[in-house]
Amino acid sequence: MTASNESPASAMSNRATNLGMSATPEDDFSNWYQQIVKKAQLAENGPAKGTMIIRPYGYRMWELTQAELDRRFKDTGHENAYFPLFIPQSYITREAEHVEGFAPELAVVTHAGGKQLEEPLVVRPTSETIIGEAMSNWINSWRDLPMLLNQWANVVRWELRPRVFLRTTEFLWQEGHTAHADEADAMRETLTMLGVYVDFARNVAAIPVIDGEKTPGERFAGAVKTFTIEGMMRDGKALQSGTSHYLGTNFAKAFDIKYQNRENQPELCHTTSWGVSTRMLGAVIMAHGDEKGLVLPPGLAPHQVVIVPVMPDKNPDVATTADHIASELKAAGVRAHVDHRDQRPGFKFNDWELKGVPIRVELGPRDLEEGHVVLSQRLGLEGKQRILFADLTADILERLPRYHEFLLDRATQFRDANTDAVDDWEGFAAQVKSGFAVAYHCGRSECEDDIKTATVATPRCIPTAGVPDEGACVRCGQASAYGKRVVFARSY
Amino acid sequence: MTASNESPASAMSNRATNLGMSATPEDDFSNWYQQIVKKAQLAENGPAKGTMIIRPYGYRMWELTQAELDRRFKDTGHENAYFPLFIPQSYITREAEHVEGFAPELAVVTHAGGKQLEEPLVVRPTSETIIGEAMSNWINSWRDLPMLLNQWANVVRWELRPRVFLRTTEFLWQEGHTAHADEADAMRETLTMLGVYVDFARNVAAIPVIDGEKTPGERFAGAVKTFTIEGMMRDGKALQSGTSHYLGTNFAKAFDIKYQNRENQPELCHTTSWGVSTRMLGAVIMAHGDEKGLVLPPGLAPHQVVIVPVMPDKNPDVATTADHIASELKAAGVRAHVDHRDQRPGFKFNDWELKGVPIRVELGPRDLEEGHVVLSQRLGLEGKQRILFADLTADILERLPRYHEFLLDRATQFRDANTDAVDDWEGFAAQVKSGFAVAYHCGRSECEDDIKTATVATPRCIPTAGVPDEGACVRCGQASAYGKRVVFARSY
Repeated sequence: MTASNESPASAMSNRATNLGMSATPEDDFSNWYQQIVKKAQLAENGPAKGTMIIRPYGYRMWELTQAELDRRFKDTGHENAYFPLFIPQSYITREAEHVEGFAPELAVVTHAGGKQLEEPLVVRPTSETIIGEAMSNWINSWRDLPMLLNQWANVVRWELRPRVFLRTTEFLWQEGHTAHADEADAMRETLTMLGVYVDFARNVAAIPVIDGEKTPGERFAGAVKTFTIEGMMRDGKALQSGTSHYLGTNFAKAFDIKYQNRENQPELCHTTSWGVSTRMLGAVIMAHGDEKGLVLPPGLAPHQVVIVPVMPDKNPDVATTADHIASELKAAGVRAHVDHRDQRPGFKFNDWELKGVPIRVELGPRDLEEGHVVLSQRLGLEGKQRILFADLTADILERLPRYHEFLLDRATQFRDANTDAVDDWEGFAAQVKSGFAVAYHCGRSECEDDIKTATVATPRCIPTAGVPDEGACVRCGQASAYGKRVVFARSY
Repeated sequence: MTASNESPASAMSNRATNLGMSATPEDDFSNWYQQIVKKAQLAENGPAKGTMIIRPYGYRMWELTQAELDRRFKDTGHENAYFPLFIPQSYITREAEHVEGFAPELAVVTHAGGKQLEEPLVVRPTSETIIGEAMSNWINSWRDLPMLLNQWANVVRWELRPRVFLRTTEFLWQEGHTAHADEADAMRETLTMLGVYVDFARNVAAIPVIDGEKTPGERFAGAVKTFTIEGMMRDGKALQSGTSHYLGTNFAKAFDIKYQNRENQPELCHTTSWGVSTRMLGAVIMAHGDEKGLVLPPGLAPHQVVIVPVMPDKNPDVATTADHIASELKAAGVRAHVDHRDQRPGFKFNDWELKGVPIRVELGPRDLEEGHVVLSQRLGLEGKQRILFADLTADILERLPRYHEFLLDRATQFRDANTDAVDDWEGFAAQVKSGFAVAYHCGRSECEDDIKTATVATPRCIPTAGVPDEGACVRCGQASAYGKRVVFARSY
């Protein structure tokens, strides 16, 4: 489309001037991230420090995340429930490591209904304690196990350096909480849910996460083992995108979660918890985005296809045909949207590029006469393709999964190109400046701290797929722990 | 099934003894309600006063409520977003009537991250203020209108006399917030959403609500007009089940929500808000339940059909056939569940009756040989029916909407039998003891208060369907206001 084909500048056209991105991920990743969040209308800061407003386009991505995860949770036998936002302060203190981990981040309600409360109420930072108490009431015998619960909720953790989606005082998440008869069953659950997260990350978010166990220093406060999925962002940093914890009998002891076994003897339950939050939206932005803005995997795109009518005023059939095409696509299960806004096509093209829509379809009067549309992709297709009306739905249904694979392959190549096994300290320090370093580590927390002080990098996980092997610690030279190499990186 | 057909008492069979209801709605409605909530495992009290834990069976009803409402919101052009839980105290005070209405119910966070906050944060009781502030940033010109938003969230209002689902310190709801160019468009929205609520109540919850406008004394704090849907519970009391407010320019003035009109002149927006909460679950319990427990409309039943295998140990094909039948029903879109628990059939029958499952299907070894199942309904069918395997899915697909109509008709008859037009004070006072009184009222708030003091009854609404008419106020004899009769009732 040339400029002469465009409709006259509308009253809103001056918006286009501040529409585009002025930062690139290469030059200033942090500024680029903030611009995308704002300009793609994903979210913004709320009035209270560290809170966020999730705008409709961003929230739709969260709804799609929820639907995909929730289906997987139900398919693996979990039921949703809802537990109170307010937790008596005394609950939080019952599990010693838990309170130590969360105390600095708590928000506390001291007044309500015009009076000072007798016992302050903590705004939940996570719900192990209040759900533990409920489970101790609900579980009587081995017949009640496993108890497989999940809740979708908001949680609050006071953040000193907030950043939209990545670290916010309030965020949205799901938290699974389950109780089991023994360690084996609880560990099976912990790893099943880790697998659900890996599946979601790869097959919906198109992020080739590395899954593995956290080192003791990086565990959840109160967990015996913590497992994680770690995605590589386009600045080479890691983003922990979901965690699954085996809590042993720590919370069962603190909240008296016991059952009668088959021999009618009381036993402590083994519990787990696992969560994915609105951080995942930050991961999607930073794993796929580019200098033009957001790049969305089809599974999380509010609009998978946007149809832009061109010069609809020259032929009224242009708009109605665009609507008809959208209806057909919707009937086939595709999230299609027609952009009828009174704006120039160029504005719309830039806007949907910035918003990361996978496929754009243009339709003008001449296209209509010739019975085709003009299709372009946000990535992975040079130029434009003409597609006959009759072929379009079938084409899109094939194209969307291919586009997903393209993003996943691209992210995998990027991850692999920026991941290196290193055995010497200088190589390690250089590698974590731009990517993941896979190295031997002695397992001592002082040595972890020392690495963090020197490079900002932390152990992200002991990768599940890592090959059993031993060597000298990349920092101190002592014998390696964990039986395999550890993934180190700077992280969000 | 006779007792001799039942499997031996299991370790859990003694649970059956406290399974049944010991209160009836006729004898002690309040106790009956509490028993249903507890015994049907819908919800229970949380540890902090007035909070509730929604258990999986109750939460599933909420998920179904959400799905039905959310689809209707999207079909009417609304988008979901999410706004922060914490609202600066200064926001709440900006709209004078709003703060007066909500101040006594607020919960306040004064400490966070180990420090006292400079400005206390209110835990949202509703989000007009924080959303108003955002709208004032987002709306520039008439092209940005209408702005049609909704959020699904938890809210907190301190309750002195909490009751699960009906009045809880924290509850779940949706709150729609919209901004419009003028009064006409905002009023159209207000009534459209009232219509969505009526549709949901009738066609999903099977509650024949009466819709209408609230009298000034019963308006939302800050609204110009409040509309409501009022259901009749089986004790004759009203339950306000959803409200839709035209807010005029009250919040637009307080938060400077302005737009440039087509002549480039600044104008105030007209805003609306509307909400349905977890109260709706209380309405469903109390509008349909009976002495055996819950009665669920198919649209909100976690299981629409429960299949109980009888003597599955005598023929292993019983259990597999039950699973096969359930798969067929699920494929046809029916929420079917097979109860494989190691319990006697009598226990299961009572349990699913108590839990209000619309249709129960039994399948034993002899039924299997004869190629049929034995079907019973929670209500509306005397005895049992034999249905051939081949006919079952079609039968159920026809039966569920008929069952819905049965519940709706029954509730409508009950409502009409307990609603009376009354013109004298004695008749009024007698009528509101057991149902709705439709009466003339002068419209003076002192007279409303006087009626409330004398009878506990309040004006529930000026019914939309009411016939235009005038008469003498049932209490004071002055000329009637509102141009039609008003519905009065005791209420939850």
